[in-house]
Amino acid sequence: MAPRFLSGDSAAIEEFLSRFDVFLFDCDGVLWSGDHLFEKVPETIQMLRSKGKQLVFVTNNSTKSRADYKKKFDKLGIPAEVNEVFGSSYSAAVYINRILKLPAPKNKVFVLGESGIEQELEAEGVPYIGGTDPAFRRDIEPEDFTNIANGSLLDPDVGIVLSGLDFHSNYLKTAIAFQYLQHGAKYLATNIDSTLPMSHTLFPGAGSSGAGLAKAIGREPLSLGKPSQAMMDAVEGKFQFDRSRTCMIGDRLNTDIQFGIDGKLGGTLAVLTGVSKKEDFLAEGAPTVPTAYVNALGDLMG
Amino acid sequence: MAPRFLSGDSAAIEEFLSRFDVFLFDCDGVLWSGDHLFEKVPETIQMLRSKGKQLVFVTNNSTKSRADYKKKFDKLGIPAEVNEVFGSSYSAAVYINRILKLPAPKNKVFVLGESGIEQELEAEGVPYIGGTDPAFRRDIEPEDFTNIANGSLLDPDVGIVLSGLDFHSNYLKTAIAFQYLQHGAKYLATNIDSTLPMSHTLFPGAGSSGAGLAKAIGREPLSLGKPSQAMMDAVEGKFQFDRSRTCMIGDRLNTDIQFGIDGKLGGTLAVLTGVSKKEDFLAEGAPTVPTAYVNALGDLMG
Repeated sequence: MAPRFLSGDSAAIEEFLSRFDVFLFDCDGVLWSGDHLFEKVPETIQMLRSKGKQLVFVTNNSTKSRADYKKKFDKLGIPAEVNEVFGSSYSAAVYINRILKLPAPKNKVFVLGESGIEQELEAEGVPYIGGTDPAFRRDIEPEDFTNIANGSLLDPDVGIVLSGLDFHSNYLKTAIAFQYLQHGAKYLATNIDSTLPMSHTLFPGAGSSGAGLAKAIGREPLSLGKPSQAMMDAVEGKFQFDRSRTCMIGDRLNTDIQFGIDGKLGGTLAVLTGVSKKEDFLAEGAPTVPTAYVNALGDLMG
Repeated sequence: MAPRFLSGDSAAIEEFLSRFDVFLFDCDGVLWSGDHLFEKVPETIQMLRSKGKQLVFVTNNSTKSRADYKKKFDKLGIPAEVNEVFGSSYSAAVYINRILKLPAPKNKVFVLGESGIEQELEAEGVPYIGGTDPAFRRDIEPEDFTNIANGSLLDPDVGIVLSGLDFHSNYLKTAIAFQYLQHGAKYLATNIDSTLPMSHTLFPGAGSSGAGLAKAIGREPLSLGKPSQAMMDAVEGKFQFDRSRTCMIGDRLNTDIQFGIDGKLGGTLAVLTGVSKKEDFLAEGAPTVPTAYVNALGDLMG
């Protein structure tokens, strides 16, 4: 079915909003672009709250914890609570602690990523090593090969490798993680986005900084970020919403909108302030089509 | 056709050797394993030379230059000349200089790899940056994102990105290389082996240390290592041999033996001292079958 264009049509907006109790928001490209807040975003968020809607901010950025994200919302003047933020690092921590539930002490996580992952694992009480530990942020030395091979550089309690966006990725960490996987550790990723849009160009994303490990072991990790339904399950595990009364709002068809469609949500809303263009979903045979779209989130103010 | 088993059959060996003027050798798993020389290897090499055969040692290891390899041959007591060694770094340098031939000064190479690549590019007179330069062996800093995006960290003469096994891979180099590719640079790799056998286990190979870039750009590099025929073309460009009178000797079916088959060589010889087992090619419907096989290279002494 062709998506409904809502901008400027107050009656259509009213009807669309009435169909949902819960809105899942992508952040970058919807609420803001980098440090630029889009027009009327705080007002729109406030309007939805005043109608009693539940809001969840769902982001694939694994370098930030929910607390880090809360600071960004505060800085930009968007009213939000830490508990409303659901990042891919938190998603992974929830999945490990509440769904995977490996018996201790073999539930230790080897982290390929930044502090956002560490903070969320801590919040869920999951033990971990690696991450930002300077002991792993160094070049590999000849003796490391021997010590990785004979196991003396490995922690026997590691049962999970968790890979996220890592600005400090290196050969040593990849080699150690590869060894854990060869010994049977579970292989998870916060998300596998190939690129990271920044400064008006593209940088390597979490799927790129973790690709060396995937290539070595010859398979992909289970991703806990959009569009993986493991993330939807984790969101639902926390918020217990009715999927038929839930709408996903996002700017990327192949992650955000697909995430909502695959999750059998009641609806999806595309905004045109980010990556995807309306031609992408209005074209004949487009693979991913939202329920409705607006030029910008602020258009929901009517 | 079922492969002929030559070990212990002097007449069959004699006949097999008489069919070839040139032998291409894989090294690790054929001549040696790590620092362990297999039995009767120097004698076998000498025997082939005494029969007037031309020998070429073809290796995917990009961290070593031909000169580095010569030292390894000397150390193990195998008679060989620098000119007989054909590594994937040399292969890439020959391809860039003699086949790709980008017009100067836009033929500069951004290197993701170790000194073996740099030495071979220098030998062919190809300009390069990156590689072992400490300026690129550091963490990415916030201002780097801006300077990569606005081009001030980029060299406008770079027309080629060359990726090989890099024990010092990092986010900064991957981000810079990714930007060159987004600007249209050619994308090459010395080889794309996913793993590196060492210390009786597997470590990340060149295909792994370079996988972050391939994932970010969404395509694979042209590989100049086995089994890519770009390497065969480079070998032929140097040695001008008759393919029908040439035999590839190796231990890996999917790289060495396939390399010979795809190159339409007169024959291939598998040795069982390395990765592949005879069950791998004797099985019904095996995808890659050598012309003949021996338990070990030294069996050719009869």
